[in-house]
Amino acid sequence: MDKYSGTTLTINLDHIRKNYLTIQSKVARSCAVSAVLKADAYGIGIKHVAPALELAGCSIFFVATIDEALAIQPILNPRSKIYVLHGAHTKELIELCNNRNIHLVLNNLEQIRLFNEFAYGISAILHIDTGMNRLGISEQDLDQIIFDNTVPRIEYLMSHLASSEIREADSNKLQLSLIKKYQEKLGGIKVSFANSAGIFLGDDYHFDMVRPGCALYGISHKICETGLLEHAITLYAHIIQKRIIKADQPVGYGGKYVAKAGSKLLTLDIGYADGYPRSLSNRGKVFVDGYMLDIVGLISMDSMVVDATALPDHIFNHATHVELIGDNISIDAVSMLAGSSGYELIASKLGNRLKRMYVGLSKEKC
Amino acid sequence: MDKYSGTTLTINLDHIRKNYLTIQSKVARSCAVSAVLKADAYGIGIKHVAPALELAGCSIFFVATIDEALAIQPILNPRSKIYVLHGAHTKELIELCNNRNIHLVLNNLEQIRLFNEFAYGISAILHIDTGMNRLGISEQDLDQIIFDNTVPRIEYLMSHLASSEIREADSNKLQLSLIKKYQEKLGGIKVSFANSAGIFLGDDYHFDMVRPGCALYGISHKICETGLLEHAITLYAHIIQKRIIKADQPVGYGGKYVAKAGSKLLTLDIGYADGYPRSLSNRGKVFVDGYMLDIVGLISMDSMVVDATALPDHIFNHATHVELIGDNISIDAVSMLAGSSGYELIASKLGNRLKRMYVGLSKEKC
Repeated sequence: MDKYSGTTLTINLDHIRKNYLTIQSKVARSCAVSAVLKADAYGIGIKHVAPALELAGCSIFFVATIDEALAIQPILNPRSKIYVLHGAHTKELIELCNNRNIHLVLNNLEQIRLFNEFAYGISAILHIDTGMNRLGISEQDLDQIIFDNTVPRIEYLMSHLASSEIREADSNKLQLSLIKKYQEKLGGIKVSFANSAGIFLGDDYHFDMVRPGCALYGISHKICETGLLEHAITLYAHIIQKRIIKADQPVGYGGKYVAKAGSKLLTLDIGYADGYPRSLSNRGKVFVDGYMLDIVGLISMDSMVVDATALPDHIFNHATHVELIGDNISIDAVSMLAGSSGYELIASKLGNRLKRMYVGLSKEKC
Repeated sequence: MDKYSGTTLTINLDHIRKNYLTIQSKVARSCAVSAVLKADAYGIGIKHVAPALELAGCSIFFVATIDEALAIQPILNPRSKIYVLHGAHTKELIELCNNRNIHLVLNNLEQIRLFNEFAYGISAILHIDTGMNRLGISEQDLDQIIFDNTVPRIEYLMSHLASSEIREADSNKLQLSLIKKYQEKLGGIKVSFANSAGIFLGDDYHFDMVRPGCALYGISHKICETGLLEHAITLYAHIIQKRIIKADQPVGYGGKYVAKAGSKLLTLDIGYADGYPRSLSNRGKVFVDGYMLDIVGLISMDSMVVDATALPDHIFNHATHVELIGDNISIDAVSMLAGSSGYELIASKLGNRLKRMYVGLSKEKC
C-alpha cells in the first residue's frame, strides 16, 4: 500500500523457484513435490508465488481452507490440483468442491462419511494422526473404517511430523514407524509424510509425495543454515527523521530508552502496524552501510527509532534507508530475537501495509 | 476471506460511534474531536470505521502516510479533512497533496522548507517534539524558524504524549508545560496535544483539538476499565475437530503439551496466520458456555488445540464455536497475556484472513 514511503518488502521469486528445484533434486523421481500455499503462501503472496512454482514444475498445492482454494484456483493452471488441508465439514461444502474441482484432505470420521456419501469426481487424502493430536483420524478410527468397509477412495495416506526440525527427536522415528504401520493396514497405499524439515531427515521420510512450505520461501533457519536453500525476502525501511540529541533525552512511548547527549537518532517509516514485532523494542537491529545499529525505545505503530551514534557523519547525513531483513540480518535472526518464529513473522504480520516488490521471473509470467 | 470456516471477527460500529460521542462529551465545545485512522483504522477496517465516525460528526482524520490518505479519501465526505502524520518529504509529494487536497503534518525543517516553497491551498499542522524524540521539530528548530521568519502558515501546533496511559507520570506535566511554552512562542496559536489516554488526563490537556485513536475502538484497557468506553471487537473460532485421548499423548508441534488419558481436545480453525499470537501457545484461554479453557501445545499456522476436559459431555458434544475475544475475554486480557499490546494485536495481526462481520449502523450507511 505504501508506495510513497520507500519502505519496501522485496520477494525474490527466482529464489523460491530455485528452492523448489533444490528440494526436487533431494527426492526420488517417483516422489512428487507439492507446495504448501496456505495463509497466502505463508504471507508471501499466493498470486506471485503460485505461478513461480508452476514454472518450476509444481502441480499439486495445499491450502488450509476452501476459501483459500477458491482464491487461488483462478491463478493456477487448470491441470494443477488443489487440496484443502482442513477438509469440508458439511454436505454443501462437499458439493461446492465437487462443482469447483477442489480436492479434500479428510481429517475425521464425519468428513469421511460426508465424502463417501456426497463427493464425486474429486480426490481425497486421508489424514491420520501419528503424534500431533491436532488434525487427522486416530488408529482406532482407521480400524473402525476398515472393519466397516468405509475406507474412502483416496490418493494418499498422509500424516504430519511434530518435531521434524529437531533431527534427533525420538518422535520422528516413532511417527515414521506409525505411518508405515498404517500404510500396511491400507494395503501399501501411497503416502505423503514429510513437511519442509522432514524432507531433510532422509529418504525414509519421503514416500510418494513431500509437502514443503517454509523451505520454499527460505524461512526455515535450520534448513537454510546448511546453505542448501535461498532466502527470498528483504526488508528496507525509509528514514523519515534524523536528530542529534543535545542533552540526555527519553525516546518513544513511556521513555523506555534514554539517549545520551550527542546521540544520533534515526526515525524509520515502519512500525508494528507493518508487522515489525513490537517485542523488538529496545532489542532489534538494523544494518546501514557496514554498521549494525540498535532499535531504541518502544516501537510505535507506524515508526521506530534507531540509535545511529556509531555512524560516521558522512553516512549519517546521506543514509536514506536501513536494512531490517536481508543479507546482513536474516529473517530467522529477527524472529528469534522477537521470541517468535519466521513463520509467524511472515505469515501473520509482515507487510500488510508495506510496498511490496516481487523480483525475478519475467513480468509476463508473474 | 474465510467465509466457509465460521471463524469470525465481529466489529460493532455502533460502539465505535458511541465512543466518539463519549469523547466529545468529555471536551469543551470549542475543542474539535478528530479521529486517528492510520494503519487501516488500527486494523479494524477504515472503509467501515470512517463512515461510522462521520455519522457521529467527525470531520478531521489523521493517517500515517500519503498512501493511506489516498486510500481513505474516496470513502469520506469531500468536506472532511485528512492530515498525514508523517508529512511529505519531496516536492513531488507536496504537489500530489496540493492536487488531492491532502493536508500535512510538518515534522522537520526540510518538510517545513518544502511546504513553504511548494504547498498551496492545503493546511499544515506543525509537530513539535516535547519528549518522544520520534517525530517533530525541536525547540532549537522552532527558535530557528522564528528567527528566520520561516514559520509556516499552520492550523495547529501539535505534540504527542509519551506516557499518557500512566496518569501519574511526571513526563505528562513536563510535556504539558513545554507545549504551552511553545504555544506562547508562536503567539498563542491553536494546539492539538491529547491522544486517547491524554483526553482522560483532564481539561488542561485538551486545548483546541484532541486526537483519539485506540479509545474509539475500545482497545485501551486503562480507559475502557473505567466503563466509559465500549469494546468493539469479538472473535469466535470454529471447532473443526473433537478428540478424546485414550492414553497420554503429546499435542502439536514439538509435543510441548502432553494431554492426559481421557482428556477432551478441541481443534480450532484459527492459528497465528490469522493473527492469534503464537506466544499464547500453552497460555491462551477460550470461553465456552460458562467454562474457561486452556489453549494447549504450540499454536499452529492455521489451527490450535484446546483442552476441553472440563466441559460436561453435552456441551463438548454440541459446541461448534469458542470465544477468543468477547464479553468474557477482553482484547486487553489477550494482548497482556501475549506480552503484546491491544494495539499490536489488532493493528498488525488479527484477522487478515478471517471472515469479518461489521454490525451496527444501517447497511446503506456502511
